[in-house]
Amino acid sequence: MKEEYNDKIEGRNAVIELLNSGRDINKIFIQNGEKHGSINKIISIAKEKKIIINKVDKIKMDAISETKRHQGVIAIVAPYNYSAVDDIIEYAHSKNEEPFILILDGIEDVHNLGSIIRTAETAGVHGIIIPKRRAASVNATVAKTSAGAIEYMKIARVNNLNDTIKKLKEEGLWIIGTEMNAKTKYYNQDLKGPIAIVIGNEGTGISNLVKKNCDILINIPMKGKINSLNASVSTGIILYETLKQRG
Amino acid sequence: MKEEYNDKIEGRNAVIELLNSGRDINKIFIQNGEKHGSINKIISIAKEKKIIINKVDKIKMDAISETKRHQGVIAIVAPYNYSAVDDIIEYAHSKNEEPFILILDGIEDVHNLGSIIRTAETAGVHGIIIPKRRAASVNATVAKTSAGAIEYMKIARVNNLNDTIKKLKEEGLWIIGTEMNAKTKYYNQDLKGPIAIVIGNEGTGISNLVKKNCDILINIPMKGKINSLNASVSTGIILYETLKQRG
Repeated sequence: MKEEYNDKIEGRNAVIELLNSGRDINKIFIQNGEKHGSINKIISIAKEKKIIINKVDKIKMDAISETKRHQGVIAIVAPYNYSAVDDIIEYAHSKNEEPFILILDGIEDVHNLGSIIRTAETAGVHGIIIPKRRAASVNATVAKTSAGAIEYMKIARVNNLNDTIKKLKEEGLWIIGTEMNAKTKYYNQDLKGPIAIVIGNEGTGISNLVKKNCDILINIPMKGKINSLNASVSTGIILYETLKQRG
Repeated sequence: MKEEYNDKIEGRNAVIELLNSGRDINKIFIQNGEKHGSINKIISIAKEKKIIINKVDKIKMDAISETKRHQGVIAIVAPYNYSAVDDIIEYAHSKNEEPFILILDGIEDVHNLGSIIRTAETAGVHGIIIPKRRAASVNATVAKTSAGAIEYMKIARVNNLNDTIKKLKEEGLWIIGTEMNAKTKYYNQDLKGPIAIVIGNEGTGISNLVKKNCDILINIPMKGKINSLNASVSTGIILYETLKQRG
């Protein structure tokens, strides 16, 4: 996993969300001859905001692109700013809401990470906590897959998830892990109070020590022959049950 | 979109599911020097079933591969067998269950299609209906992304979704469409009877005529600034609400 942060936001929807978010943009590359309606929209907003637009040919665009799915537009921004865990909790308090936090214990696939950030943003999660090691971090593909949600979501990147979990418990949060063999079905669990939901690695699930530190383990019942869901789908199911319970 | 069916199943989990499914396998290619535990498992099951194993080098494997993520194993199978809509309804009746069908109105991304098939299988859906035109069909990437679920899921491919919907209504099914601007929240809708859930295209949603033919439209409420979910995540949320209601 690369350690450097990424400074490119690629694709039409992701760049439109970026423009709407108010985050600083250094410049925007547009591919020569691009005539898609949303490209015209990007150009007009960029002009309004006095952002430099560089028109370049397809070969140059492909060379700049990291996702290889730039759709004719790439924005160059300051490196991604991770938040602190405290910022997330304060953000929840500032909205007069019980903290609703998502902890990702080793999500490795950048598409999953992006899709999870997108889902978490739509479900009203206050922030996401990811570990610094052995996990995907925010890059151009994550930004694109998140459909721009990384611009609105607070993401903290911590050295040790178990230390962070201890801290969250001291703040009064319940730590709820998702685990195939857990006895409690997710919809029978009260998810209304201050909580952090833990989602494990795509292949191996939640690591042993983190599992031990969870207050409650819940499962998603399955009815078919395949006994696992894609990580971003299972996260969606749990987060939306939480949103529903919170009304 | 390619019209031919695909006859390759790639990746360790997908091939293991294939071996377990009992479907006919012509041969299995294994990459020279592959020592992953699950590769040994594949070899031993294949030997037991007297399936031909061809060991080839990485260059050959990459040339055979369509997904470019073969993980050292590719199985060659007979073309994918689509089901008829009647087969799906009969299957539900044979299990003494109210039909629970998924209609995909123009899912274009093969990763979304694969992930949706996987989720539908775990949620107990009896079958999936897709249109022949302007939509992804089953290929090697779909098979891999479905984690092998295509081996267990009945998928019907029809010329005209609206004709099929009429037929399903005559069979007593309720047609329930998902739509951003619908007034009924998905969890306030009774989903226990004989139903077909309609999921629309990633960008444009359900087409107008199909929408008109739906008995009920439901929405997934969103709380953030991003106002749409990935198609496979929203499908997961709706299918799991259905599974929960059906107990």
